Amino acid sequence: MTDSTMESAIPPHLQCPRTRQRRVPDDYAPPYPSYVARHAPSVLRVVMAYFGVQYRPSEVTAKAAADALKEMTASFGATRGPGHWDRARWTDQAGFESVILAAYWDDVEAFDAWFSAHGASWSMVARDGIGTYTEVLRPHVERYETLFSNPDQPEGIAALAQGMSGMIMEHAYWGGARDRIPASQTDAMAPTGAASIVRDGNRVRVHGHDNLCLIRSGQDWSDTQREERTMYTDDVEPVLREGMEFLRDQGASLGCYTNRYVVIENAAGQPTTKSYGMSWWKSLSALERWSESHPTHVAIFGAAMKYLSKLGPEAKLKLYHEVTVTRADEQFFEYLNCHDQTGMLRSVSPQSTA
Amino acid sequence: MTDSTMESAIPPHLQCPRTRQRRVPDDYAPPYPSYVARHAPSVLRVVMAYFGVQYRPSEVTAKAAADALKEMTASFGATRGPGHWDRARWTDQAGFESVILAAYWDDVEAFDAWFSAHGASWSMVARDGIGTYTEVLRPHVERYETLFSNPDQPEGIAALAQGMSGMIMEHAYWGGARDRIPASQTDAMAPTGAASIVRDGNRVRVHGHDNLCLIRSGQDWSDTQREERTMYTDDVEPVLREGMEFLRDQGASLGCYTNRYVVIENAAGQPTTKSYGMSWWKSLSALERWSESHPTHVAIFGAAMKYLSKLGPEAKLKLYHEVTVTRADEQFFEYLNCHDQTGMLRSVSPQSTA
Repeated sequence: MTDSTMESAIPPHLQCPRTRQRRVPDDYAPPYPSYVARHAPSVLRVVMAYFGVQYRPSEVTAKAAADALKEMTASFGATRGPGHWDRARWTDQAGFESVILAAYWDDVEAFDAWFSAHGASWSMVARDGIGTYTEVLRPHVERYETLFSNPDQPEGIAALAQGMSGMIMEHAYWGGARDRIPASQTDAMAPTGAASIVRDGNRVRVHGHDNLCLIRSGQDWSDTQREERTMYTDDVEPVLREGMEFLRDQGASLGCYTNRYVVIENAAGQPTTKSYGMSWWKSLSALERWSESHPTHVAIFGAAMKYLSKLGPEAKLKLYHEVTVTRADEQFFEYLNCHDQTGMLRSVSPQSTA
Repeated sequence: MTDSTMESAIPPHLQCPRTRQRRVPDDYAPPYPSYVARHAPSVLRVVMAYFGVQYRPSEVTAKAAADALKEMTASFGATRGPGHWDRARWTDQAGFESVILAAYWDDVEAFDAWFSAHGASWSMVARDGIGTYTEVLRPHVERYETLFSNPDQPEGIAALAQGMSGMIMEHAYWGGARDRIPASQTDAMAPTGAASIVRDGNRVRVHGHDNLCLIRSGQDWSDTQREERTMYTDDVEPVLREGMEFLRDQGASLGCYTNRYVVIENAAGQPTTKSYGMSWWKSLSALERWSESHPTHVAIFGAAMKYLSKLGPEAKLKLYHEVTVTRADEQFFEYLNCHDQTGMLRSVSPQSTA
């Protein structure tokens, strides 16, 4: 159960005197409820770590990938391993079979200890026939936000939260994500600098830039039944897929470095009824512009709105996202034996490679 | 022809040190061109005056209305009359035939002189069988904005401008209208106070409230041909009409006091291929919220986007609007023998009538 009082998405201990305004007035009331994850005030930073594997499908490479994933997931159980993780699969734009482990910590020191003992080798030690990569953000809690349509099922970083908020105010309008990020009270979060590459044989590190933006935006249709399930699979999902494929293939001109539209798997590697899109953006502004006005996202928004306004509070589809805007020193990207269209490798123009 | 350099919608002489931020970063580039009206810097205030007539259709009332309109349009030709005006017709939600003359001045003193000589009697002297009303805004130039898809055909207040801008920056994103209004540099333009009524027999004055908002949003399909004309009439106009009727009938809960969706007429009273929607809002915020997220406007936006992205620069449909956010002392509303669902009469809850 949630409190019926409206609260700010920014918790009291992260509120500060503003030099920048929220987009909506104080008496704004959103037309439907949404919720955000609430960490304990003692949590100052979190870690979002993506461990990816890619390969041209064959019996040998599939075995190598499965072994790598098995080792990594075993290490997640070690001391100071992630508090939460999930696993997802997709076929990327180069036709590579791809699996990613998304793992979350709310203690940077724990992550560092675990990483040096178990995680660092993932994209440092080559494995025959497969590429591996590590993409890590270690944002301060002022630099990301979450949003959930349902307060009972946390996903992603929210799985480490103390709990969910009551109904929050800053949502259901364009610019809500920015207004939910505590840093927006005083910071335009404009991107500065440019990504660069350092090569060491087949291993490539990408140095990002300030205010790089990551979104993980997910949907869970597990509880939908009959007509609602059909509405999701026939009316919403194809529009979502089209938008995700547009970003993947043509997002570069809009500031989207890469987009992965993935299906979450269970431990046995079987697809579940959950998916998410994950994309790296030059800036929150670039993400805002695509979301608000590009035909592919307007179509997604329209399909979702039609779905939700038809079903109202009866809708069983669960939606959530997390948006992070990080400083360059909160980022780590390493790619080993990966094709050059992988992840943040696409953030670097050919001229700027070293 | 327009300059290819991007310029701010806010002209240099109205720029000031900001205490509030624009919604887009300095390097934002809109995906297609739009233009704004540029008044001479000597213009400090303008006048937007709507003279309306309403009647239950009959031979007698139609004649009375035609006579009234004829007198008024004749007076527009008098000394210090409007620099521009047009005439439009619709049937209102109460089934009344309605005609409105929209007249524009860029000199408040000229308007005042003309009004006391010719305009004031419109809603002071009763005419048999018809209702008349006067709705006037006299905004400072800091308090409104315009936007045109085409720089060659001004409409509304823009007809009095010195000319059109080059391509402007602040458009094609939600919040653009606010960012084009010079006052937004330092003012949240939040509504304060409440409208009230003063009755004098069948004549009613409405005293508005600070930061009341007016939008006139128009479309001109005169130059469309064949397939494009069909696309407009079959795919866009019905969606637009549905949104306009929603606002008219159910807008109150969203802060829309009234909405008129009208077709512009020629001097002979015949419909042209131009229309506009005109609505009074509690605040710019309320207008923003409906525009960005209500299914009825998302549908209009989606239909327009589909149309324009299909036709690209070849589109002959012309779109424009003007949005004004006025102080209470820049407003004048007077209704004579009008039904109680007319215009700003709907801004006053029954309890607050005097």
